[in-house]
Amino acid sequence: MKERLLSGDRVTGKLHLGHYAGSLKNRVELQYRYDTFLLLADVQALTTHYDRPQLIGEHLRHVALDYLAAGMDPEHATFFVQSLVPEIAELTVYFSMFVTVNSLRHNPTVKAEAAERGYTQLYYGFLGYPVSQAADIAFCKATLVPVGEDQLPHMEQTRRIIRRFHELYRPVFPEPQALVGDFPRLPGLDGRGKMSKSLGNAIALDASSGEVSEKLKKAKTDPARIRRDDPGHPEICPVFAYHEAFRPEGAAEIRRTCSAGTISCTACKEKIGSSLNRLLDPMRERRAAFASQPKRVDELLLEGTARARAIAAETMLEVREAMGLAYFGGDRR
Amino acid sequence: MKERLLSGDRVTGKLHLGHYAGSLKNRVELQYRYDTFLLLADVQALTTHYDRPQLIGEHLRHVALDYLAAGMDPEHATFFVQSLVPEIAELTVYFSMFVTVNSLRHNPTVKAEAAERGYTQLYYGFLGYPVSQAADIAFCKATLVPVGEDQLPHMEQTRRIIRRFHELYRPVFPEPQALVGDFPRLPGLDGRGKMSKSLGNAIALDASSGEVSEKLKKAKTDPARIRRDDPGHPEICPVFAYHEAFRPEGAAEIRRTCSAGTISCTACKEKIGSSLNRLLDPMRERRAAFASQPKRVDELLLEGTARARAIAAETMLEVREAMGLAYFGGDRR
Repeated sequence: MKERLLSGDRVTGKLHLGHYAGSLKNRVELQYRYDTFLLLADVQALTTHYDRPQLIGEHLRHVALDYLAAGMDPEHATFFVQSLVPEIAELTVYFSMFVTVNSLRHNPTVKAEAAERGYTQLYYGFLGYPVSQAADIAFCKATLVPVGEDQLPHMEQTRRIIRRFHELYRPVFPEPQALVGDFPRLPGLDGRGKMSKSLGNAIALDASSGEVSEKLKKAKTDPARIRRDDPGHPEICPVFAYHEAFRPEGAAEIRRTCSAGTISCTACKEKIGSSLNRLLDPMRERRAAFASQPKRVDELLLEGTARARAIAAETMLEVREAMGLAYFGGDRR
Repeated sequence: MKERLLSGDRVTGKLHLGHYAGSLKNRVELQYRYDTFLLLADVQALTTHYDRPQLIGEHLRHVALDYLAAGMDPEHATFFVQSLVPEIAELTVYFSMFVTVNSLRHNPTVKAEAAERGYTQLYYGFLGYPVSQAADIAFCKATLVPVGEDQLPHMEQTRRIIRRFHELYRPVFPEPQALVGDFPRLPGLDGRGKMSKSLGNAIALDASSGEVSEKLKKAKTDPARIRRDDPGHPEICPVFAYHEAFRPEGAAEIRRTCSAGTISCTACKEKIGSSLNRLLDPMRERRAAFASQPKRVDELLLEGTARARAIAAETMLEVREAMGLAYFGGDRR
């Protein structure tokens, strides 16, 4: 039997090349090796989007298409919608009884995100993000969670929560392992910080070939290159980072010719543009195929969710039994 | 149509005369006037009993018998078990997205309870008590909540949470009103603080006639009364407080004769003992009748819970529609 892997995204907008390079490409490969659960985290989207939830439905369908376009395969991955698995909320509430506020406040990921978003007032749900993440992982008994380095504190807290549950009651969950990948944090087109939809410096996975060219044309490069033969500094150029991420076979040549001032920025951008379009073309085809069948997409979300709920119901019965809360014998729902 | 009233208790132990005088007697009367929802709060019991949940099942049945014995009537009141209505956890999670940690930290009830229990470390679930209480009230659209003065800050926070939900999304819930009663806070048998099971200074509602006499015999009285004709100070005597609560028709005479030193403590205790047994006798009968049919009690809990769940499902559909989260049209469960 394959190990179960949990992965997913908060559905707060379209996915872009940064998501693809940073995790999605890896997940597409992992789905063949592991029983992959793919969480469309609409409830957790509320931690930052509680004041505009009306967009979440649109984002949800969009992210589902992004996954399908990128090559996530419903035959191998169970797509499921968080809000349709209320057992996750239930497990979050049970876990919350023995997790201290201090351990959440000191979680570096919560701290960093709170600082980044400039929250002067923390919301209770936002503070509890690590608890609900533990519930996401635990309810389906995932043993593997692919994460970036910056997500390790969340994973460590998940493991602590699960261990504490086992100490207090009895073992129910496997102790999940982080599958840490060394994936590039793709810089944005403006060269400032990482690629991010909210910063408007991203190339979306659904960008047309024209949009890709257009966006690349406006992309910041090394400001020292005013004339074609000025020597460039590829290490500070976001476009060079895209070569490294998406066209590694040609990156050494770009480094050399850019540093020597023997390639123009225009030519360099055309090369990566072609590569990106070669990457995106099959995604465009798959997207178009699924986008023309919105009912089919809804169905696969609902089928995956039904599978996740069945597992959730089994797990919650074990949880209630372990805690001594299964008063009326067996499941009563 | 009758207004809906929500009431209930955390199931952390047997109920006692303090509960009866402080709220249960009042609820028995209110059940005929309002559509009463009676919450057996086993999930909220975990906020303080997460480390010993194995007792909760026993407490749950005991409290159910206490309610029935005291005169709560399943024909008039919907008994329901919190953990069997997972929609409450779901609604708690939705509310938690827009409630600030500070507003919870400054809730006087949370503050006072945290101080009383000597928590140096607050648990996340304990901190969120007011959020889950708002969900208890909101899910069944209760308009009335009988509370003591000390619970008013919780009620005010519930009202704020509901108003905020309406501002952010759209109106779904009635704004509940506190039904503040001026009920005695019954002192414990040791005369120190209020009657409380955990302090061991309580007379349980299931106490036998012998236990009542025994407990009263050991009850502290005014220490100034050493001999029978020493004048007493009824205002500092817990036994006098019981006269006031359970035998008001005779309290003036006790005050007079105690102050004058013309009644012995023994005689005074016998008088209140008889009154308490007259109060408890019909409760003992009703308890015995239900205790002999444990299946019937379970059934009435499950029937009430089924009614509460049906209402919860309707409310959650409205909640998801108001928030724009009802993506797949209608209810999908």
